[in-house]
Amino acid sequence: MTHNVAILGASGYTGAELVRLIASHPALKVGALSGNSKAGRAMADVYPHLRHLDLPHVTTIQQVDFSGIDLAFCALPHATSQAVVADLPGHVRVVDLSADFRLRDPEEYEKWYGKPHAAPEMQRQAVYGLTEFYRGHIARARLVAGTGCNAATGQFILRPLIEAGVIDLDRIILDLKVGASGAGRAAREHLLTAEMVENVGAYAVGGRHRHLGEFDQEFSAAAGRRVEVQFTPHLVPASRGILATAYVEGDPAAVHRALADRYGGEPFLHVLPMGQVPGMKDVRGSNLCHIGVVADRRANRAIIVGVIDNLTKGSSGQAIQNANLMLGLDETAGLMLAPVFP
Amino acid sequence: MTHNVAILGASGYTGAELVRLIASHPALKVGALSGNSKAGRAMADVYPHLRHLDLPHVTTIQQVDFSGIDLAFCALPHATSQAVVADLPGHVRVVDLSADFRLRDPEEYEKWYGKPHAAPEMQRQAVYGLTEFYRGHIARARLVAGTGCNAATGQFILRPLIEAGVIDLDRIILDLKVGASGAGRAAREHLLTAEMVENVGAYAVGGRHRHLGEFDQEFSAAAGRRVEVQFTPHLVPASRGILATAYVEGDPAAVHRALADRYGGEPFLHVLPMGQVPGMKDVRGSNLCHIGVVADRRANRAIIVGVIDNLTKGSSGQAIQNANLMLGLDETAGLMLAPVFP
Amino acid sequence: MTHNVAILGASGYTGAELVRLIASHPALKVGALSGNSKAGRAMADVYPHLRHLDLPHVTTIQQVDFSGIDLAFCALPHATSQAVVADLPGHVRVVDLSADFRLRDPEEYEKWYGKPHAAPEMQRQAVYGLTEFYRGHIARARLVAGTGCNAATGQFILRPLIEAGVIDLDRIILDLKVGASGAGRAAREHLLTAEMVENVGAYAVGGRHRHLGEFDQEFSAAAGRRVEVQFTPHLVPASRGILATAYVEGDPAAVHRALADRYGGEPFLHVLPMGQVPGMKDVRGSNLCHIGVVADRRANRAIIVGVIDNLTKGSSGQAIQNANLMLGLDETAGLMLAPVFP
Amino acid sequence: MTHNVAILGASGYTGAELVRLIASHPALKVGALSGNSKAGRAMADVYPHLRHLDLPHVTTIQQVDFSGIDLAFCALPHATSQAVVADLPGHVRVVDLSADFRLRDPEEYEKWYGKPHAAPEMQRQAVYGLTEFYRGHIARARLVAGTGCNAATGQFILRPLIEAGVIDLDRIILDLKVGASGAGRAAREHLLTAEMVENVGAYAVGGRHRHLGEFDQEFSAAAGRRVEVQFTPHLVPASRGILATAYVEGDPAAVHRALADRYGGEPFLHVLPMGQVPGMKDVRGSNLCHIGVVADRRANRAIIVGVIDNLTKGSSGQAIQNANLMLGLDETAGLMLAPVFP
Repeated sequence: MTHNVAILGASGYTGAELVRLIASHPALKVGALSGNSKAGRAMADVYPHLRHLDLPHVTTIQQVDFSGIDLAFCALPHATSQAVVADLPGHVRVVDLSADFRLRDPEEYEKWYGKPHAAPEMQRQAVYGLTEFYRGHIARARLVAGTGCNAATGQFILRPLIEAGVIDLDRIILDLKVGASGAGRAAREHLLTAEMVENVGAYAVGGRHRHLGEFDQEFSAAAGRRVEVQFTPHLVPASRGILATAYVEGDPAAVHRALADRYGGEPFLHVLPMGQVPGMKDVRGSNLCHIGVVADRRANRAIIVGVIDNLTKGSSGQAIQNANLMLGLDETAGLMLAPVFP
Repeated sequence: MTHNVAILGASGYTGAELVRLIASHPALKVGALSGNSKAGRAMADVYPHLRHLDLPHVTTIQQVDFSGIDLAFCALPHATSQAVVADLPGHVRVVDLSADFRLRDPEEYEKWYGKPHAAPEMQRQAVYGLTEFYRGHIARARLVAGTGCNAATGQFILRPLIEAGVIDLDRIILDLKVGASGAGRAAREHLLTAEMVENVGAYAVGGRHRHLGEFDQEFSAAAGRRVEVQFTPHLVPASRGILATAYVEGDPAAVHRALADRYGGEPFLHVLPMGQVPGMKDVRGSNLCHIGVVADRRANRAIIVGVIDNLTKGSSGQAIQNANLMLGLDETAGLMLAPVFP
Repeated sequence: MTHNVAILGASGYTGAELVRLIASHPALKVGALSGNSKAGRAMADVYPHLRHLDLPHVTTIQQVDFSGIDLAFCALPHATSQAVVADLPGHVRVVDLSADFRLRDPEEYEKWYGKPHAAPEMQRQAVYGLTEFYRGHIARARLVAGTGCNAATGQFILRPLIEAGVIDLDRIILDLKVGASGAGRAAREHLLTAEMVENVGAYAVGGRHRHLGEFDQEFSAAAGRRVEVQFTPHLVPASRGILATAYVEGDPAAVHRALADRYGGEPFLHVLPMGQVPGMKDVRGSNLCHIGVVADRRANRAIIVGVIDNLTKGSSGQAIQNANLMLGLDETAGLMLAPVFP
Repeated sequence: MTHNVAILGASGYTGAELVRLIASHPALKVGALSGNSKAGRAMADVYPHLRHLDLPHVTTIQQVDFSGIDLAFCALPHATSQAVVADLPGHVRVVDLSADFRLRDPEEYEKWYGKPHAAPEMQRQAVYGLTEFYRGHIARARLVAGTGCNAATGQFILRPLIEAGVIDLDRIILDLKVGASGAGRAAREHLLTAEMVENVGAYAVGGRHRHLGEFDQEFSAAAGRRVEVQFTPHLVPASRGILATAYVEGDPAAVHRALADRYGGEPFLHVLPMGQVPGMKDVRGSNLCHIGVVADRRANRAIIVGVIDNLTKGSSGQAIQNANLMLGLDETAGLMLAPVFP
């Protein structure tokens, strides 16, 4: 049985990535594509790499006929998603890829995003979309809030350690390297090719990145106490990919074991043999996450390296994984594409 | 029904790309992987991005049990393929990705590759693997010789024009830009990242590139007279992809029509509306080829731009397309993956 | 003796490149920096790589005190330069880096730039700034119009051939590859890192690029008849650099000789031995131009490859070279910096 | 007065960078170039970007006439430098760019480099070449051991903090990102463009990188007790540049003050205003180091970001800075070239 889905915000990178993945999905079909700034255009015009696909034209959200739509992916900019989701017909299940419904506490939302939440009652229904940790709730949810791509990476490598109690909760450092698509398709000076080639730059240094709201919420819940990590993202000259390097205090063998045990049966998460680390490109274009653990020369210190593709496991692949659960499909349906290397 | 295939030369980029594509192919299964320099190792050790797949270990060719193998992909270096293919059991059909069987005339082979062919009798059986032009022969062949990646690109954009007689055969210029993987995985100084970042360089300038042997053979056959193009490949700072810019003399509208007519029903070849050109990344990771035609301001001159992924449509994707035909499968089986953009 | 110069439009890439070069120039000093959108800011804030220099603050043009300024570099956007230059005090000599004064014929200007010229009387005084071809006029000029970066490259490799009469004037093809800084610092979608990594794209195909106005003007004058080249620029994933590949009909040895003879005494233009070609990165960050010639396998056809740094020899280095002449300094003063490789 | 220098090992990247910098140095002249594997060739053949310079041919070391040479730069591979330096005539002063003389303790050398030192008596004479911390000794030394490029970066951002006693010495984490030229010009698979484009990878994770020998030696000496940092280098898809991110425990304001005070009068080291961080490309091609400090949201935690060009301040620029001191020249002679951005 095929499910019709709508992609709202199809002109951004996560929208395009949804279309790419759905193109070879056995049970999903793109029933509508909206993107207000590109309304009226063919998708091949907005994204020529999708030229070979038979896709609906891009319309405004208002023009979408939701009567035949089972599920909507909202790939809209932060803050605009709230109002749109609140207005969707009740029969449409929703996977939101924005930041709008990730933080359960409206005060935390306001703290990190700078204004009050416009649909707090919907926020209460939303389930946090980190699939491997919220499967049961996601399957039953009407609204799932996809995680931030940095937040997903950090949680994949740290959360089992917090849950297992094998690291010092007051000394967790996360140094992250991310490609340019993580910042979206909006044209901004610092994202220009001329600026980024031969460049690496830290941003939102010192605890100012919004994904910290997610880390605080999730890690504190997992630990049963307040946990605040240190987090520094860096922009690297690549289009896709995240590599996160975490520094923790704890027994490296216990760290490796906690990750290996936690992810033993997971189809997308692979823990490498002790002492090996993955490269960012090892998972490009796939829904996979590779994780490695190395013992430092100093006792009781471990380094953990994790990699995902920010547009796939970090957003659109994760969104489809959640949609699969919500629609009663095999969780891996359409998502076992191998990485594109080199 | 599933067909077992062997990949001989699995440690190179085209070998890895075959594994990637077969991983989501509905009717092919990797039965054996050989790679003499990496024999004894797990494929995940040679190519960590394939870690999630259940694959046989890499062995020597001698260790491969061909009894259950229906078809072998030979992704071996040029000149080593000849002997290997000659020794394969008769029931095994062969798609060779090297240059060894592309040139029908042994003298031409010797001219371009610098030594006599070691298996001229097999060369006579080989069918040239440019699928869209040799379908019938490929389906019945035992041995198919995959085209060069540059040669494929040039033929996709020029061959229909030569067949249709719409361009001046004495003035065909092909300026090609190709990513580093086209040169393979062997470590050489000029392919180092430090050398290639911020760099573009022409190589084999002036008619010295070996793929000219293929151009001469195929274009002359298509024209019924000797045709010699001018061809300059350039290495660009990218891992994958080919963009070819051709300059021809002839009526631009007739040029566009010849291409559009010729490829109208093709699943992988897409001719853009007159005046539009594709970007190299529009087909990354896919088996697609996009082609655009623009009229120059000077009368009777046209520019044609074509793009493929050198590792997919340029080699491993094309190889699977041919294998599909040889095994009686749907020609597009396993090959409709959408491009990975951005 | 030190000359004070003003840089008008200091917030663009060519403005920053002027500052970089002047920083180690023995006889020039930055007396004023203007940039209306960044007025009031420190240059270190606009361009952190210039932090170590003692520079004036960025002001509006209106705030510049021209009384102590000997020469102004106008690095303003096309079309805005005309009015500014017309208003400068008479004692200030001007090197304009925009396209505003390059075309002697106002109709040609209007044809390529889409609107009438605002200061046609000034255009008549302007000398075209291709130093190696207009030295005498430049030294005496009040207003010099710097060439386009693509136009400079094409002229360096083709102009001596046209002057020497060694090639067919009706069959000149110029295929050019240029880094992203050639498009400036304005944020536009197609210049984003996510779009350009792993990408190559042709633009302004078919004779629509504005630098054709310069080619037509200069080549026709050099030939004494109308000459129209075919020109296709391509954007490559690099921040700086131009590599141009020209295809001409004529005796390759005569082509090589014409270039070697013409540039024999030039400090910045180097013709390689016959058969060798330069790489784009061989001149990065320098005011050099390297040129190579190769004979094609087809008789009477030659390929010429030329490289420059678009921001240096292609604009700001050339501008300083012209300023040196205008101020009676050694033409190479401050410009012999070696290229930065790798 | 001009000093003649020899560059031994001119075919590597640091050798080429020495030539580039000396080309615009007011008081140094390249008197000899050796490189055994390239002996007999013109330097323009080994490094085409140096084509415009009037340079001696590359010879073997044995062929170098040291009688007119004042100082030799040894840019030889690790382990080969020891024997060469030991054999140089006594009147020749030496700046060694290899790792051979960096570690004062022969046991530490053997521990990190895996074999006994071949010239321990020379090692005793060697002065560690981190200019800003060993000026007086360097000026009088016959043999100066240039620091590792990673080791230089780490020391610039951490050493003043250790000296000033403002951070916890047991919790220093250094996460470093470095371009491909840091690994040299030898062709190796993981340095290929096809592998590194779109990739980031950690290496020598867990305290196995040889530059830790330098960190341990220098930081312990500065602290008066054993100090062992955690250090993880990452290879990024760039040709040049290092960005280091350090995580320390201590008062951020004191951290910033310690750096600003220590480097207040330094010509090459620039500490940014509190809260700002530099980008890797801000110093490309220059001898500069930019350093920024940010307070973390967690009390008593600071993040420090430092950038240098690995080939300039990290090796060849530093070497010339030391040579300037040794020859009684202005320390900044030839080294004030502004960075090349974008």
